[in-house]
Amino acid sequence: MKVSARNVLKGKVKKVTPGVVNVEVVIELPGGGELVSIITKESGERLGLADGKDVYAIVKASNVMLGVDH
Amino acid sequence: MKVSARNVLKGKVKKVTPGVVNVEVVIELPGGGELVSIITKESGERLGLADGKDVYAIVKASNVMLGVDH
Amino acid sequence: MKVSARNVLKGKVKKVTPGVVNVEVVIELPGGGELVSIITKESGERLGLADGKDVYAIVKASNVMLGVDH
Amino acid sequence: MKVSARNVLKGKVKKVTPGVVNVEVVIELPGGGELVSIITKESGERLGLADGKDVYAIVKASNVMLGVDH
Amino acid sequence: MKVSARNVLKGKVKKVTPGVVNVEVVIELPGGGELVSIITKESGERLGLADGKDVYAIVKASNVMLGVDH
Amino acid sequence: MKVSARNVLKGKVKKVTPGVVNVEVVIELPGGGELVSIITKESGERLGLADGKDVYAIVKASNVMLGVDH
Repeated sequence: MKVSARNVLKGKVKKVTPGVVNVEVVIELPGGGELVSIITKESGERLGLADGKDVYAIVKASNVMLGVDH
Repeated sequence: MKVSARNVLKGKVKKVTPGVVNVEVVIELPGGGELVSIITKESGERLGLADGKDVYAIVKASNVMLGVDH
Repeated sequence: MKVSARNVLKGKVKKVTPGVVNVEVVIELPGGGELVSIITKESGERLGLADGKDVYAIVKASNVMLGVDH
Repeated sequence: MKVSARNVLKGKVKKVTPGVVNVEVVIELPGGGELVSIITKESGERLGLADGKDVYAIVKASNVMLGVDH
Repeated sequence: MKVSARNVLKGKVKKVTPGVVNVEVVIELPGGGELVSIITKESGERLGLADGKDVYAIVKASNVMLGVDH
Repeated sequence: MKVSARNVLKGKVKKVTPGVVNVEVVIELPGGGELVSIITKESGERLGLADGKDVYAIVKASNVMLGVDH
């Protein structure tokens, strides 16, 4: 499937922290940066998320806020 | 101000495309990747967005979806 | 790509209304219902959206609000 | 109250899974499909969600991503 | 309809700025503050939004980011 | 940092309820109203959230839904 989201960043799962209904997933980007995602625990299991797995972080453009230094 | 968002990526404005109420902002990341943001036109003007300006892309962790290859 | 989103509904594009930076896409569901999506114009073009095209509406579970009758 | 959201789908609660601050709610649609929602536990209690209860799934159009097959 | 959203603020429409597919709505709160909403133009028309109209601003708790001063 | 979000409301933390990966934060507004936010537990700790702390609730305009009475 090809998705409409303008932001698709490739990375590797660095850490999965399970809660009761959600999991927090830390993704390591090639350049050394990190992204954090919260998805449902069932989705994490369905995607087979585990440390080191290749993964895409997908963000809709309307969910990207901007900031500037003063 | 320090924000709760787990994802704050530094980049430079590459292109601003104004609509009537929104603007589309393309941000160039240091590694060469790009992010796209949709914000209101008034916010774009208030932040003084223009090509080459340093900017942060801010994404709440709950807005990061994940994907894996089949 | 397989996505983490818990809600993936198959339908057909019924109408595409282009704005300057966004497009509004009306999707017809098999049962006769409709969904509406706002994505960037560039994404609409990249996906080749046009009337009658098969399409998936994808919604992250954290973006589904609930309501009940009084 | 009448809401601005373009997507309001009627269904029945199929399953409620409580976490500590959030609950996951599976909704069965008339056609047999399902939707999943994550809301706060307090909201779930305030709405009196329980198996079989009539409920509306409400999604803002800007939160609907699209996908197409390759 | 009663909604799950934890944040429902009553106000009055102060200004409606129509775009092609979206409209920007400025809402005046009782205490003098303002909120801004972007919804689809069709939703704005369906709700009959016009200056001075009583309106509720509805925000899901997962869409509220926090910030603190340094 | 100055953010693009059109909605920045100043308040005080009234209550923090920790889950496993998320925390629920109730914010008291000057006029007596309340807002509720769900952020990750790590963000809550990084911001040093505690009862009585000054805090900003930040909401992107595209995440504000509207409602009207019938």
